[in-house]
Amino acid sequence: MTSGTAPVTLAELQTGIGPRLGEVRDEIRRLIEADFPLIAQLNSHLVQMQGKMFRPTLLLLADAATGGASDRSAVALAAVVELIHVATLVHDDAVDHSVLRRGMPTLNALFSHQIAVIMGDYLYSRAVIELVRLEDLDALRVLSRVTNEMTVGEMRQLFAHDPLAFSEEDYDLLIRAKTASLISGACEVGARGGSAEERRALRDFGEGLGMAFQIVDDLLDFTGAEAITGKPAGLDLREHKVTLPLIYALPRMSAAQRNTVAELMGNPEPGEPEIARVVAAVRECGGLEYAHLRAQSFCSKGPQTMAANRPPGRSAERRLANAADGSSKNMMPKRE
Amino acid sequence: MTSGTAPVTLAELQTGIGPRLGEVRDEIRRLIEADFPLIAQLNSHLVQMQGKMFRPTLLLLADAATGGASDRSAVALAAVVELIHVATLVHDDAVDHSVLRRGMPTLNALFSHQIAVIMGDYLYSRAVIELVRLEDLDALRVLSRVTNEMTVGEMRQLFAHDPLAFSEEDYDLLIRAKTASLISGACEVGARGGSAEERRALRDFGEGLGMAFQIVDDLLDFTGAEAITGKPAGLDLREHKVTLPLIYALPRMSAAQRNTVAELMGNPEPGEPEIARVVAAVRECGGLEYAHLRAQSFCSKGPQTMAANRPPGRSAERRLANAADGSSKNMMPKRE
Repeated sequence: MTSGTAPVTLAELQTGIGPRLGEVRDEIRRLIEADFPLIAQLNSHLVQMQGKMFRPTLLLLADAATGGASDRSAVALAAVVELIHVATLVHDDAVDHSVLRRGMPTLNALFSHQIAVIMGDYLYSRAVIELVRLEDLDALRVLSRVTNEMTVGEMRQLFAHDPLAFSEEDYDLLIRAKTASLISGACEVGARGGSAEERRALRDFGEGLGMAFQIVDDLLDFTGAEAITGKPAGLDLREHKVTLPLIYALPRMSAAQRNTVAELMGNPEPGEPEIARVVAAVRECGGLEYAHLRAQSFCSKGPQTMAANRPPGRSAERRLANAADGSSKNMMPKRE
Repeated sequence: MTSGTAPVTLAELQTGIGPRLGEVRDEIRRLIEADFPLIAQLNSHLVQMQGKMFRPTLLLLADAATGGASDRSAVALAAVVELIHVATLVHDDAVDHSVLRRGMPTLNALFSHQIAVIMGDYLYSRAVIELVRLEDLDALRVLSRVTNEMTVGEMRQLFAHDPLAFSEEDYDLLIRAKTASLISGACEVGARGGSAEERRALRDFGEGLGMAFQIVDDLLDFTGAEAITGKPAGLDLREHKVTLPLIYALPRMSAAQRNTVAELMGNPEPGEPEIARVVAAVRECGGLEYAHLRAQSFCSKGPQTMAANRPPGRSAERRLANAADGSSKNMMPKRE
């Protein structure tokens, strides 16, 4: 890694902002409160499902790095960003018919597909209401743009099922829209107290980090176990989702290896042995290693730029740099 | 009718604002523009599906009635309101698995359920982006609130399938959230140039009109033909949706009539004869007449309040009053 720091866990990254993350959780509960019993029930399920708060963490660190640490609005904005993230997950799971998320049943599995669609809309409109209440047009501008980008990413996802037609460029566009946009938005909104240059630097940093984050997430589908990710391994392949390791490996495969891919893609419900054969072929052709290297390269941009323009040693900045480093290694206790 | 005006058609209501409605249509096309081919294709389908522009019409009339006629932002706001409406329809159709809307196939029927969910999100986030571009926090406040209310209305709709448990009060709450909220919001946003009192009066007027609008829409399901509504008649009953005529009629039914209802509700796919029997029972027990009267009573509030505080004879005001009158009669060329 170019930054030369040791890999960190997310828990380490969150040292020092623990109390503020607690406030963010309280704030989320307040934002989604509802009189209507079904919505209250759905909310309590979502609160239990509480993720690792990656985006709020970045927002709070960006806030601290740009000198806004005492501002109470960072907590409110962090809650809004997490709420938008959860709204997106709820719709993604509905669209994908996923049954597990963060090791718990999804809303569509536990209640119904209909309810998941409506609930996603409910959560997102609550996030907008809160941004309006904060009268923060800048945050609204950033977050409405990235929300729109995420929907375009989801559309792109629908086309990510043909390994011969789906290129690395398509993959980059997909993960930039689907994942990097909101992570970048969280950093940009967190940096609202900084100069235009700092905001830009943190936005770019967030984008690189988001790209790395998604690549690692896709890698874990090849290498990870359910205990780590909260989802069964091999799920993407089972659902015929084409990600970077496969894209890289495919043109480097032998005819026999390519056959294992064709077989898997031709089977509407591929089994463990078929998945294992494709994983082995992807590994042999360097797909996992390549994805790992690409994730690292995305992390080598960003915080350095900012550090160059700031007095050294600010702890939040150091931690942001560590976030970039850790994201390509072992900082993901749960897949989001 | 208390207002004493003759019923009007929507076309008559739109006299004088025709060119501005044309601008609203152009604006909608601009707002939903996309590079991504699939989204462009979906958009062109939605543009063809173009409805009767009821909400933009009300917004522009409210704008004219409160003296803001020359302001270009009314057109942009009218486009945003229609866009939010279309986003809601796209999700409603996905949730309801509807196949027809405005006489054309729905997105979920023509493409897929997944695409409809993502597309609704795309359209709604575009609407928010535009409101941010206009830097109109007041409109954002009103429209994010009503969007959230609409999602609660949709949740309530999920419970509107048991005629014994679903009361007239539940029905009122449902249609207020589902339909009246956005119509009221359109009037309120249109009146942004007026005094606080005028804004309140037009908001209340829009709410009454919206209630009447939905009651008439539900009535048309009992009495209307597909040519008028763009949807097959009896669809609500076929889908076991309980609306006002049935709610009113049920406790007034004979045992035999009640049996026809129980039979219909017990059959997952009731046929024409079953539906016709329930329609006849509802009619005999006064359900249609009652719903008609309630729609009229909702229209008798609103524009009078405002007219009392304004010099008489403003044509936009007169037309708003006519809108209230017409909504319970024959102004709906197509069901929305």
